Amino acid sequence: MNKYAIYHSTEAPYAYAKDMDTLTLRVRTAKGEVKKCEVYYKDKYMEKLPFEIKEMKVVAEAGLFDYFQANISVKRNRYMYYFKLTDKDNNVTYLNERGAKSDNIEAYSYIYPYIAKEDLYEEVPWLQEAIAYQIFPDRFCNGDPTINPEGVLPWGGKVTLNTMFGGDLRGVIEKLDYLEELGVNLVYLTPIFKSNTAHKYNTSDYFNIDPQFGTVEVAKELVDKCHEKGMKIVLDAVFNHSGDDFFAFEDVLENQEDSKYKDWYFIDSFPVSKEKINYYTFGPNHSNMPKLNTNNKELREYLLNVGEYWIKEIGIDGWRLDVCDEIGHDFWRDFKKRIKSVNSDAVIIGEIMHEANSFLKGDQLDGIMNYPFKNAVGDFFGHRYINANEFSNILGLNRMLYMDSITKQMWNLIDSHDTKRFLTEAGNDVGAMKLAVAFQFTYLGIPYIYYGDEVGMDGGDDPQNRKCMVWDKEEQNLEMLDYYKKFIKLRKENKVLVYGDYKEIYCEDNVIAFSRRYNDDICIAIFNNNKSPETIKLPLIGKVQDLLNDKSLIIDGEITLESMEVKILKVN
Amino acid sequence: MNKYAIYHSTEAPYAYAKDMDTLTLRVRTAKGEVKKCEVYYKDKYMEKLPFEIKEMKVVAEAGLFDYFQANISVKRNRYMYYFKLTDKDNNVTYLNERGAKSDNIEAYSYIYPYIAKEDLYEEVPWLQEAIAYQIFPDRFCNGDPTINPEGVLPWGGKVTLNTMFGGDLRGVIEKLDYLEELGVNLVYLTPIFKSNTAHKYNTSDYFNIDPQFGTVEVAKELVDKCHEKGMKIVLDAVFNHSGDDFFAFEDVLENQEDSKYKDWYFIDSFPVSKEKINYYTFGPNHSNMPKLNTNNKELREYLLNVGEYWIKEIGIDGWRLDVCDEIGHDFWRDFKKRIKSVNSDAVIIGEIMHEANSFLKGDQLDGIMNYPFKNAVGDFFGHRYINANEFSNILGLNRMLYMDSITKQMWNLIDSHDTKRFLTEAGNDVGAMKLAVAFQFTYLGIPYIYYGDEVGMDGGDDPQNRKCMVWDKEEQNLEMLDYYKKFIKLRKENKVLVYGDYKEIYCEDNVIAFSRRYNDDICIAIFNNNKSPETIKLPLIGKVQDLLNDKSLIIDGEITLESMEVKILKVN
Repeated sequence: MNKYAIYHSTEAPYAYAKDMDTLTLRVRTAKGEVKKCEVYYKDKYMEKLPFEIKEMKVVAEAGLFDYFQANISVKRNRYMYYFKLTDKDNNVTYLNERGAKSDNIEAYSYIYPYIAKEDLYEEVPWLQEAIAYQIFPDRFCNGDPTINPEGVLPWGGKVTLNTMFGGDLRGVIEKLDYLEELGVNLVYLTPIFKSNTAHKYNTSDYFNIDPQFGTVEVAKELVDKCHEKGMKIVLDAVFNHSGDDFFAFEDVLENQEDSKYKDWYFIDSFPVSKEKINYYTFGPNHSNMPKLNTNNKELREYLLNVGEYWIKEIGIDGWRLDVCDEIGHDFWRDFKKRIKSVNSDAVIIGEIMHEANSFLKGDQLDGIMNYPFKNAVGDFFGHRYINANEFSNILGLNRMLYMDSITKQMWNLIDSHDTKRFLTEAGNDVGAMKLAVAFQFTYLGIPYIYYGDEVGMDGGDDPQNRKCMVWDKEEQNLEMLDYYKKFIKLRKENKVLVYGDYKEIYCEDNVIAFSRRYNDDICIAIFNNNKSPETIKLPLIGKVQDLLNDKSLIIDGEITLESMEVKILKVN
Repeated sequence: MNKYAIYHSTEAPYAYAKDMDTLTLRVRTAKGEVKKCEVYYKDKYMEKLPFEIKEMKVVAEAGLFDYFQANISVKRNRYMYYFKLTDKDNNVTYLNERGAKSDNIEAYSYIYPYIAKEDLYEEVPWLQEAIAYQIFPDRFCNGDPTINPEGVLPWGGKVTLNTMFGGDLRGVIEKLDYLEELGVNLVYLTPIFKSNTAHKYNTSDYFNIDPQFGTVEVAKELVDKCHEKGMKIVLDAVFNHSGDDFFAFEDVLENQEDSKYKDWYFIDSFPVSKEKINYYTFGPNHSNMPKLNTNNKELREYLLNVGEYWIKEIGIDGWRLDVCDEIGHDFWRDFKKRIKSVNSDAVIIGEIMHEANSFLKGDQLDGIMNYPFKNAVGDFFGHRYINANEFSNILGLNRMLYMDSITKQMWNLIDSHDTKRFLTEAGNDVGAMKLAVAFQFTYLGIPYIYYGDEVGMDGGDDPQNRKCMVWDKEEQNLEMLDYYKKFIKLRKENKVLVYGDYKEIYCEDNVIAFSRRYNDDICIAIFNNNKSPETIKLPLIGKVQDLLNDKSLIIDGEITLESMEVKILKVN
């Protein structure tokens, strides 16, 4: 047996509490080698009891590896366990704390000593059922021209880095019917707090709405109206850095070494100067975004209060955290405790553009903006850089970095205000975009729409990806809009697409197919990313429902898809 | 290249902050395959700067694997990096977030987004330099017969599970000169708080010394006198469970569902009964040790106060935590913050008898009682179950579970009050014990002496491992005592044995040799665990100092050891 491939660890995602009574265990082996993987387990103190045995299931085949998984339970939550792996030639390997061996010494069983309630990650079902819609407020809808900022440009005009178009919260309120009709149920707004830029990622006042966007009252009205429509709403918290016109940084600039806020920042030397930029900033050198020192107790308390305030004051349903990964884990642990103590249903989503396992073990975030997903989807459907197999591997390895609950809570974007729009990335290939969207809505995790994608907006890198929302029906791609509506409805009506286990059933060249299973429901999604029809073998004989065409099909072990076609089949 | 073997992860121990300016990176590869492993790195925002390149060093060869490691630094602590691996045939494999590939896409570099001060684990040099001595107070020395408990037995009498012999804190004070002469500099006492058993792991009062052991004043005198002698002292905190006569559990028994302490425990049903044991206990069913619910806020605060109290009140230098792993991570994170805020130099050592990576990432403990070390040493030197290669593999894999700082802070015991004494485990083979002791004092981590081992005490499982300390010189093994003194002195005089890098240089059959290197100092330790002389090849030519025999030796590529001999050589 290939012992190099065998891996287990006594922490998430290889061992974690699914709930107070269930331990989830994962083992990695070489792909295609192990035919049976069993976990032997019992209460660590019950020396005289025999081990229970449970066969584990393959939950992912990715890269060079297979991943087996099982849930086990013992009274009192104190686990000892080891694994028995049997290959196709019936060779047996045992895996315990001393590694993969041909014999097993029970004394060296792995120990998961106890599931403590305070360590348990509690998943958020409403989040898993969400369909997210990102709004960049200045560019979405101008609902109240009386608060237009100075120098506002006509709607739809040419965007540059800091042009303003007068989009505001009243505009979002006015368009809630549109969002409701579209079918999304989670609205995420990029920052709306006082700030002198269009993007508002340089906050000058965390406790006030930017007057260009509205007032606290209007914000509250927006939240209430979202809730009336059954939508959740999440705001953007920028805690990595403040604006340079935030009161604390202004105080530092004014009082220099005497400022009581000097430890809220990382100052290289005094006198602090915006010209010399002798302080730590966001990014390479953004002088208007001085980095905040979240290790400072007063600042930490200040920011935790911001997090708490808007949940209490206007009732938002959670936070998206800007540059989340450049703030320490210790801060996010405190943040989670504070936020969940105010509203245990509120969610915390990090902006982390890469592997984020150290943030996603359950003590910090509920999920992240899933850029690895975006990159894979872009590479496969958009650029066609990679084949189905590589696409599948990237996604599989990504899933296997996290607990299952987290995977279901990932914000699976295909673009955002920080990337090219998908359509532009795909060379304006609408067919490619449709496949990508279909994939978003059938894969594990939260489908995520960047405003305007649903009406076919294009746009390159910032600021071209932040053009004004196209409201003129004649300029909207209404077929795309219908396509989005169809998939939103599909996902809402089929909880199997939210909660179902994921299993790949076909992956060759440019075709990928997977099943989702939840209790008795099974859905199969097939994506032909070829510019030609393809007939593929499917392990399925019988009648299925073609959900996109609303008709029955008889499958007899194979199926043909048109060029760039997706099929969603329901098996009963 | 064997890509199954290649492993890296963006969290400890594969990526961790060594200090605010240094990121330590580790990569695992198949043993003997990769001749060169380089890390390419830069600030993640400095897109236009080229990657810096650093060659990584092999820090362990264990089991099937080699482990490469390097320290890197960039200004502002924001790292992106990937690895380039070259095998002996000059095949190149790149390793980034998308896995091990023959080509590299820089966009998929690993990201270690930021080193936050609040997440940094700060190692404890005094702990790394410690030589620990464990005392089981009832059995160490009776210094004050006036406080003998009822029914005390004559010193050295037959031990049963709850016999008492009158050992006390005054006795420890009286023997501090002995400990000083022995050379130890860290005293660890098993519990001394009020409790009705001899072992006192069922605490009835966390804020008082057991009257059988003394008073708070005597405890303070003990601590002060330790400090006068340059010794540190650590006490034992039992927070997993209380005694059944702890006031809170007594209140539960008395007031049942009306008790305000009912949530301090895990009650299955009311009425709570010690006969039915309808509550969660320590171990299989110890009715006198009801498990505490550390998720209860009041209880948590109570226990944190206990932790703080004894540091402030009598000045102890840290805590050893009983059944540490059956308490949640969240509690220990709070505990660390509280303890380090009172005394940043105080240490927190968990009793965890197995892999403890989830407790040892820097946010909870400083180290653990290293039972995997004990088991390996017992198996190799004691039982002779395993050969040098397996011994080396177990230790190497264990080191590679942790950050280097943690490995240097492991309490490397060979026995304790919870195991057979080493001498008994080794069938009274004094030679085997001497090798084990020599190994303890030259390996990475803290040598740990269980009272009496140094004078040749034997003893099987509890309670035979808790016999009264032998003070009668005629009954002591004085040669063993000298042997211990020699090694204690050796370790104290050669900081290379504390701080030096570890490198195995010979490992065959029953012989193992390694070097320790610290700046310009190099020590070599060679252990012949054969009952016959052995001549081994050494990659060394020249004059060395034989530290155990205090003479010079000329080595010419090989060296001969007598049966069961250890040699410690100093190379200059």
